[in-house]
Amino acid sequence: MRFRFKAACVAVGSELLGSAKLDRNSLEITSVLETYGFKVIEKRVVGDRVESIAAAIRDLMAQCELVVLTGGLGPTSDDVTRQAVAEALDRRLRRDPEIEGWLEKRYREMGREMPEICRVMADVVEGTRILRNSRGSAPGLLAEDQGRLLVVFPGVPFEMREMLEVHLKPELQRRSEGRHRISRTLLLGGVVESETEARIRQLYDGFGREDITILASFGVLRLILAAEGESEFCTRRLDEMEGAFREILGEDIAGVDVDSLAEVVISELDRLSLSLATAESCTGGMVGENLTSISGASRVYAGGVVSYSNEAKENLLGVPREMLEAHGAVSAEVACAMAEGVRNRFQTDWGLGVTGIAGPLGGTEEKPVGLVHWAVAGPDGCVEKHRVFPGDRDVIRQWSTNAVLDLLRRRIG
Amino acid sequence: MRFRFKAACVAVGSELLGSAKLDRNSLEITSVLETYGFKVIEKRVVGDRVESIAAAIRDLMAQCELVVLTGGLGPTSDDVTRQAVAEALDRRLRRDPEIEGWLEKRYREMGREMPEICRVMADVVEGTRILRNSRGSAPGLLAEDQGRLLVVFPGVPFEMREMLEVHLKPELQRRSEGRHRISRTLLLGGVVESETEARIRQLYDGFGREDITILASFGVLRLILAAEGESEFCTRRLDEMEGAFREILGEDIAGVDVDSLAEVVISELDRLSLSLATAESCTGGMVGENLTSISGASRVYAGGVVSYSNEAKENLLGVPREMLEAHGAVSAEVACAMAEGVRNRFQTDWGLGVTGIAGPLGGTEEKPVGLVHWAVAGPDGCVEKHRVFPGDRDVIRQWSTNAVLDLLRRRIG
Repeated sequence: MRFRFKAACVAVGSELLGSAKLDRNSLEITSVLETYGFKVIEKRVVGDRVESIAAAIRDLMAQCELVVLTGGLGPTSDDVTRQAVAEALDRRLRRDPEIEGWLEKRYREMGREMPEICRVMADVVEGTRILRNSRGSAPGLLAEDQGRLLVVFPGVPFEMREMLEVHLKPELQRRSEGRHRISRTLLLGGVVESETEARIRQLYDGFGREDITILASFGVLRLILAAEGESEFCTRRLDEMEGAFREILGEDIAGVDVDSLAEVVISELDRLSLSLATAESCTGGMVGENLTSISGASRVYAGGVVSYSNEAKENLLGVPREMLEAHGAVSAEVACAMAEGVRNRFQTDWGLGVTGIAGPLGGTEEKPVGLVHWAVAGPDGCVEKHRVFPGDRDVIRQWSTNAVLDLLRRRIG
Repeated sequence: MRFRFKAACVAVGSELLGSAKLDRNSLEITSVLETYGFKVIEKRVVGDRVESIAAAIRDLMAQCELVVLTGGLGPTSDDVTRQAVAEALDRRLRRDPEIEGWLEKRYREMGREMPEICRVMADVVEGTRILRNSRGSAPGLLAEDQGRLLVVFPGVPFEMREMLEVHLKPELQRRSEGRHRISRTLLLGGVVESETEARIRQLYDGFGREDITILASFGVLRLILAAEGESEFCTRRLDEMEGAFREILGEDIAGVDVDSLAEVVISELDRLSLSLATAESCTGGMVGENLTSISGASRVYAGGVVSYSNEAKENLLGVPREMLEAHGAVSAEVACAMAEGVRNRFQTDWGLGVTGIAGPLGGTEEKPVGLVHWAVAGPDGCVEKHRVFPGDRDVIRQWSTNAVLDLLRRRIG
């Protein structure tokens, strides 16, 4: 048993019960909880009704050491979380003059008078601790009841996120008595999940299956390694695990504790003071979008061409018309000519090209939907690869983006 | 009260309780349920434990006319939904020879022998109806208990989706006696949520607050209108509602029952046989990516330039160096020069340009993070707009993308 405590998440809000919106706060909360040894055993989404919220709190506090609830703390009549907590814990609500004063001051500073309805945000449940919200009006609360902990945050992700850092982490840190569950993520590119699993299976026995998680996502694989105990023990243990995985996986590991291949590529190019340009066809800008999602991309990424039409490939990238006619736009030759072309056009150290058939239309027997050619051109020439990717239009484009970024990071690495 | 029945969704699976993966099946299920007048009042995610699953079933069936549960129907020891249903309904499990035979046949047809563990998928809960799964091995089930309905589907989205169509819809259709809840979505661009809400408030009274939902997302607003009753009544009612909203919102409505502004732009350009090219700076390819996510984009979208560096703006788009020096890369002049430049370069009917400061670095007092200029150039010249968008890097880029697509659809519309 690796987790020592049980926890549950409750999200409050009728808008989370429709067909358009999911509660995403619970992912970030879970990530923090796991770090401190809490396993989430249940998640609930309930509407804006006192009885539903109170029932969820009672039910889950009976089963878990910790319940984290988000939402329903605003000023409108929909926001009934404060009453629900009072009811679930059988305590009274009272208005807190200090919070009332703080709310009035906050509105004054924004140059507005506080609407009367906002005063309910100063209602506190007796015997609970108030959690200040530096990014919004509604404070959160922390309650203890028979040794169980209830923590309530606003549902606005921007506010909730800050309060996780400022309030929840220190509280759990204090309670964990120096014990942590710490994880480290190895990001892999250019590998297949089933093959990778077969290669690393031998490590499961040694390190424990529960401490190794594989997540696959369209050409990127994440290996999450976990260790539990005191901080230094965890670091040693994770170093040891990482070493064992590196011995087997070698170059397939693109980075450690990084979010994406784009992040690896940008930071590696930045370190080496190298520049990059992109030529995209089927991905239509997705590679550029991925790269520029990283702050600081402008230091290495000069820009790119989305050459969706053959004319654009010819006129902007200098792909010869004869090549397009002889091999077709989706071919190894054109992928390389695009990569070389954009490298010349932007005068960068590296250039990359992607061309393929994202579907659902446009496939032929010879060149089916999913066929993608990608190429990376650099000081030492051009390397091209291709594959028929599975999935729908969006999935094929994501596979393609990761494939070309992986090829690039291997060549500059 | 517009919804006549209450429903709940339960997702089973420990992998849905970690920090990486959300249950998304409930969105599709909710969409079907709402069509037939069921309001989802609670959603739960529980782990692979008989007691947790059974408790959720009992608890929710006591409150709702319908509970839809997904997951835990596979052949491994983790898959305990069958036992949990039997326990919750206090019925027995028995092995069904017909299903066993069907499973064996299925494996034979795939050229493999059925592993012994797969036989548990032939276990059925007494007195329930078996729901065939044409896309996988594990059948679902439908149980009635004291007038309440429990429907269980596999968790694999590809299988679940098919079973929603084949089993759930006909069942609810039969029970709804010809009554439906049908919705229609108006997509708005270039508007602010609070102002729009003030403009349409007068319609709430006439049509009922519960039948009008507003969802805002970074420069795009969705107004979801709903009507309940017989099919023809719903159509008439929705036509009437749409008419009333059109009178107030006019041109701000970009489309009806469409997914995105990119879809509106592509279909409108296609209808008019017009072509488009894009010049992007701060969005780094996001506009192109949005446009090319629509199948058929190649008929109208020639391509674009991601001019992340000033050199690219100059060399590929012909933005004069003096202009860049005099006004800076983030300026009305440069946005228009980019739009005009890419329109000339690709020889298209329309060209668009976006330049801004997505942050978190690079802002100044005069040009803060979030300042974005966007422009659309066409046969009748160039129109430019700008705003300081709120939010982080990703959010600013999404606002920018929607802003320029909205300006374009208004000019071609």
